Amino acid sequence: MRAALCIGTGLLFSAGASVVGQAVPGSEGANVLMPQPASLSRGSGELVLTSAFSINIESPGSERLNRAVARATRQLRERTGLAFAAGTDAGESKARAVVHVQSEGEAVQTIDEDESYALEVTSSGVRIDAATVAGAMHGLQTMLQMVQPSGEGYVLPLMTIKDAPRFRWRGLMIDCGRHFEPVEVIKRSLDGMAAVKMNVFHWHLIDDQGFRMQSRRFPELTGKGSDGLFYTQEEARDVVRYARDRGIRVVPEFEMPGHSTAWLVAYPELSSGKPPAGIRREFGIADYAIDPTREETYKFLTSFLAEMAEIFPDQYMHIGGDETPAPDWKTSPRILEFMRKHDLKGSDALQAYFNQRVLKILTGLHKRMIGWDEILNPDLPKDVVVQSWRGEESLIRGAKQGYQGVLSAPYYLDAMHSAGQVYLADPLPTTSDLTAEQRRLILGGEVCMWAEQLNERTIDSRVWPRTAAIAERFWSPEQVRDVDDMYRRLDAVSVELEGLGLHHLSQEGVGLRQLAGTQNIDALRTFASVLEPVSFSERYQQQKTSQTTVLDRFVDAVRPDAPSRRSFEQLTHSFLQDPRAHKADGDQLVSAFSRLSAALPEVQEQMRLSPRLQDVQMRADQLAGLAAAGSEAVGYLSSGTKAPAGWKSSRADLLMTAAKPGGIVRFTMLDSLRELFAAVPERP
Amino acid sequence: MRAALCIGTGLLFSAGASVVGQAVPGSEGANVLMPQPASLSRGSGELVLTSAFSINIESPGSERLNRAVARATRQLRERTGLAFAAGTDAGESKARAVVHVQSEGEAVQTIDEDESYALEVTSSGVRIDAATVAGAMHGLQTMLQMVQPSGEGYVLPLMTIKDAPRFRWRGLMIDCGRHFEPVEVIKRSLDGMAAVKMNVFHWHLIDDQGFRMQSRRFPELTGKGSDGLFYTQEEARDVVRYARDRGIRVVPEFEMPGHSTAWLVAYPELSSGKPPAGIRREFGIADYAIDPTREETYKFLTSFLAEMAEIFPDQYMHIGGDETPAPDWKTSPRILEFMRKHDLKGSDALQAYFNQRVLKILTGLHKRMIGWDEILNPDLPKDVVVQSWRGEESLIRGAKQGYQGVLSAPYYLDAMHSAGQVYLADPLPTTSDLTAEQRRLILGGEVCMWAEQLNERTIDSRVWPRTAAIAERFWSPEQVRDVDDMYRRLDAVSVELEGLGLHHLSQEGVGLRQLAGTQNIDALRTFASVLEPVSFSERYQQQKTSQTTVLDRFVDAVRPDAPSRRSFEQLTHSFLQDPRAHKADGDQLVSAFSRLSAALPEVQEQMRLSPRLQDVQMRADQLAGLAAAGSEAVGYLSSGTKAPAGWKSSRADLLMTAAKPGGIVRFTMLDSLRELFAAVPERP
Repeated sequence: MRAALCIGTGLLFSAGASVVGQAVPGSEGANVLMPQPASLSRGSGELVLTSAFSINIESPGSERLNRAVARATRQLRERTGLAFAAGTDAGESKARAVVHVQSEGEAVQTIDEDESYALEVTSSGVRIDAATVAGAMHGLQTMLQMVQPSGEGYVLPLMTIKDAPRFRWRGLMIDCGRHFEPVEVIKRSLDGMAAVKMNVFHWHLIDDQGFRMQSRRFPELTGKGSDGLFYTQEEARDVVRYARDRGIRVVPEFEMPGHSTAWLVAYPELSSGKPPAGIRREFGIADYAIDPTREETYKFLTSFLAEMAEIFPDQYMHIGGDETPAPDWKTSPRILEFMRKHDLKGSDALQAYFNQRVLKILTGLHKRMIGWDEILNPDLPKDVVVQSWRGEESLIRGAKQGYQGVLSAPYYLDAMHSAGQVYLADPLPTTSDLTAEQRRLILGGEVCMWAEQLNERTIDSRVWPRTAAIAERFWSPEQVRDVDDMYRRLDAVSVELEGLGLHHLSQEGVGLRQLAGTQNIDALRTFASVLEPVSFSERYQQQKTSQTTVLDRFVDAVRPDAPSRRSFEQLTHSFLQDPRAHKADGDQLVSAFSRLSAALPEVQEQMRLSPRLQDVQMRADQLAGLAAAGSEAVGYLSSGTKAPAGWKSSRADLLMTAAKPGGIVRFTMLDSLRELFAAVPERP
Repeated sequence: MRAALCIGTGLLFSAGASVVGQAVPGSEGANVLMPQPASLSRGSGELVLTSAFSINIESPGSERLNRAVARATRQLRERTGLAFAAGTDAGESKARAVVHVQSEGEAVQTIDEDESYALEVTSSGVRIDAATVAGAMHGLQTMLQMVQPSGEGYVLPLMTIKDAPRFRWRGLMIDCGRHFEPVEVIKRSLDGMAAVKMNVFHWHLIDDQGFRMQSRRFPELTGKGSDGLFYTQEEARDVVRYARDRGIRVVPEFEMPGHSTAWLVAYPELSSGKPPAGIRREFGIADYAIDPTREETYKFLTSFLAEMAEIFPDQYMHIGGDETPAPDWKTSPRILEFMRKHDLKGSDALQAYFNQRVLKILTGLHKRMIGWDEILNPDLPKDVVVQSWRGEESLIRGAKQGYQGVLSAPYYLDAMHSAGQVYLADPLPTTSDLTAEQRRLILGGEVCMWAEQLNERTIDSRVWPRTAAIAERFWSPEQVRDVDDMYRRLDAVSVELEGLGLHHLSQEGVGLRQLAGTQNIDALRTFASVLEPVSFSERYQQQKTSQTTVLDRFVDAVRPDAPSRRSFEQLTHSFLQDPRAHKADGDQLVSAFSRLSAALPEVQEQMRLSPRLQDVQMRADQLAGLAAAGSEAVGYLSSGTKAPAGWKSSRADLLMTAAKPGGIVRFTMLDSLRELFAAVPERP
């Protein structure tokens, strides 16, 4: 452990892995790649970067590759301060990178695009070989991540990498239906995705709370269904171009027949029953559903989806398909009559009928259908892809039935799991009992960022850096699963992602300043460093969020997976191994507890002055007790003295109170405190 | 003074004015308006905001006002957490704001637009009255700034405001020629301007280093002159719309006949002599100039300016006109012959001829001409406006000759003056000897953000919050000039501006993380808190910046006018008044020095690991000595003991060394240390 730093920026400790992304002098540069490549062999020595360095394309002809090289060159400039210029010629510079591709790749990238590449760094230069531009772009990202400081300059360690993704579908879904996200947010998210080699942006464009995609044929969809917050067709095309430039497919999702309030506000004639009076502001499952029994519905959808197919060239189109209770389907005489006539037994069968009709439309548009779990129905042909959100089982069940699948269930970011937790969830664990052929059907996985409690000010810290850890799960070999090593690299990648323009590391400070109304937020940061947002559902229970809830609370400022948890755990475990021998760890813990206690008076004063901070007042009160008890515990353990009788039970009460819901945030160090308290010897 | 906070976020001290923008409980809300209104009278009591509050327009019909009210409503939601909806009807809510305007105002806002408004807050509601939508928008901004926390909620203190600007021209110029700024940067700058009631965005679109405005008639201007970094016509129209929606005029600048390398790269036939080989990467004054002697030049400009006039509706068009040494005008036989023929005595006369021709073109387009100092020439008619950049004198001289003028000389942000310094510069001081009529000719002032050493990552912290202080100078009565009170309010406004999406408060952290390659920047922040960027010219001398210089150094991260200077000054002055009685101030100083010293080992280690930090190594070395000496000085003064002989001269040496150029940054506390050292008694 390094010396503890002053508390104040949300990092209570300066942990061993703190100076990340930097070569430890005297050793070769550390491997900070994320995702880890399929194979890497390190040479000894390094290639020194100078301003004469340039990235050159050996196989010209691809404008997309030219732009990728120009971007990589700019990033390399920013990372090294070296003012080299982009180069596409084969001019003689001392050490240069050469990029060679066999072909542009598919005109519209599919799941079968060859994304592999080879990267070689020798003392005379860098060589990237790839079958396609997509592969070459991954190689460039790897090269950028490998740049290391060394002495007074920057180097690339000598190495040979052969790399290809484990899964073909490595997605991030962003829900822009419940809360709109401006195009610039989408673009910087795509930049982040490209940096960690993700290749599918799943754009959830519609939900009960908003229809975000402009249709010229059906202008009321956004006219009445979007509150004026939507993407124009030109913007959508721009996003598609931007994504393609980064090797990312854009799969648009048009939710139907459920989650369709926004459709039906605009075109009430499509409604199964009484149409909605307006855009839905509450979350949860709505009763409205598109009417699957009318021909007008399919006429409408044929026209709409054809228009969308012009904008979104991807082979896949996502039709949602989840959560359609549709009570009207059980009561409407007209619909029941239709079901009888078509021999449809129940709502599931009616939805399967609907899906088959939509599938026919999509097939006519040369599109493949993807939908959520619920679309899984034996009546559907096998070229439908199932996105599994309710659990791994449906993915497995689908594969056994012959359906391709994408796993999302473990990757819901609004569950507020730690990076370590989501990292270990594997779309296709070795232990799975699927046959080799069935295993091929598991295309990969998708991170889901649902937006009930999200806006443009908080999205980055919710998505990043955790998504980078999942991106590694989707790309790297299965056996890459050392959580400590992942976190070490994640810390470095997180700073890199910020360099690309993402705001995940600065949003906390912005939020706290807005809450406190002042720039003096050192104490508040210290307090915030041991708190993190609760899960979506817990927040929903506590706050009953709706679309009109202002997302401007403490919970919106603090970041998920706060680093303090790991620091507390590491120190606690090390200390408890041998409290006397590891007294330094105990001292660090006490020092952290003291700093927390010292921050509280200022925090309490700011809470008194800021109404929007008052909901976390109780957490400040609890922290006072926890920090004091933590210090006491370390004291007993370090000195080998016993606590007075009753100490443990009263401290257990503190923990129990602190673990209760409150302030929509939770403490990060309760488990560590629990272990500390449990280890304290007590007098009888 | 409040208790000192932990060092670490760039605020070494928690000064008295730290919890800004917040009502001190028990007193009425503090006046945190910036700019201060022309007249304000406070009632006693307050209007409590509830979720039933709404802003209503009494005089419907203006879409622009509707949008302004929707924006204000959203900001009010974000500031209070209250989920009230925008309202344009006159529904009965308990307390509501009513906005009444007499008219939309001018279709194209001119300098004569009536921007006045009256704002009344009573216990039953808010009323904003204005002659125009522009005035009403100022009133809405004032209302937003007056929102105060109080107890568990938010209030508006009761008051009556009658307000109108002192100057008609309150501008911000951003140079997008030398470094391009994306549209989103321009838009958030406009948001900031609107918040502090500025009304002119002067868009410097062309310089030797880039032609940033698309012309369809002359596509090579950006095709060859922009490196692909330019504004499309649609983007420019969008910016104009966005600005108008905020009561801001857009005055485009097309630099001619000097600073014209980018024009001439694209259309070499317009060049006075040998045309440039490419876009100029160096800064400073170029020798290239548009040829004033050919009719083709005027044909070209007639066509180009007519195209631009379609995009920029403002009455004014800026033609630059500065810094045109044009050696070819002194040597080219053809040009000399032309001058003889037209009886033009020297380059100034030739440029005046050029300006007259351009003026004719502009007049034909119903535009008025504005240009920099150098256009001032008795041959020009009096309806030309002179933007004074070389000093107040030219403004005065122009006014005496009957020319309207706008002052910019004192408001160059890249001079890196403090907010206090720029705040006191007055475009029209009482002491001026102008007649009443001449005084009317002084239209106002313009802040200038030149971009030699600027990019999209650093612009916000260079522009804000200092520009807000200057905005007050342009709007508020002349006698509003209490620097301490300005800083108190500026701290609050700065947080408000961040709430609008500006990044000036977070850019430092982002920059330091990129430099250190780690999230652990507490120590580095502490170090950074006592350093600030040197002026443009000092940096230019030290670093010889060109357009290809990567702006990724420590100097780019740290912010101008670092708050620590004022904290050091205040504590030092208070302490030195009576070192024994004011021991607490001395303790705070020692505590700050100690924290600086404590941070240095970590800082030095990070510098060793990060090549891009190594240029400030010397500042870290110097700081060690300064901090130690500072503590010693306080010690002698507090205890009344004498320093050993020679102490003062060796400490003076430290100061002298630390004052020398280095690392392109300067210390903020040298003056305070000098005073401290001088006060120390020394043994003979």
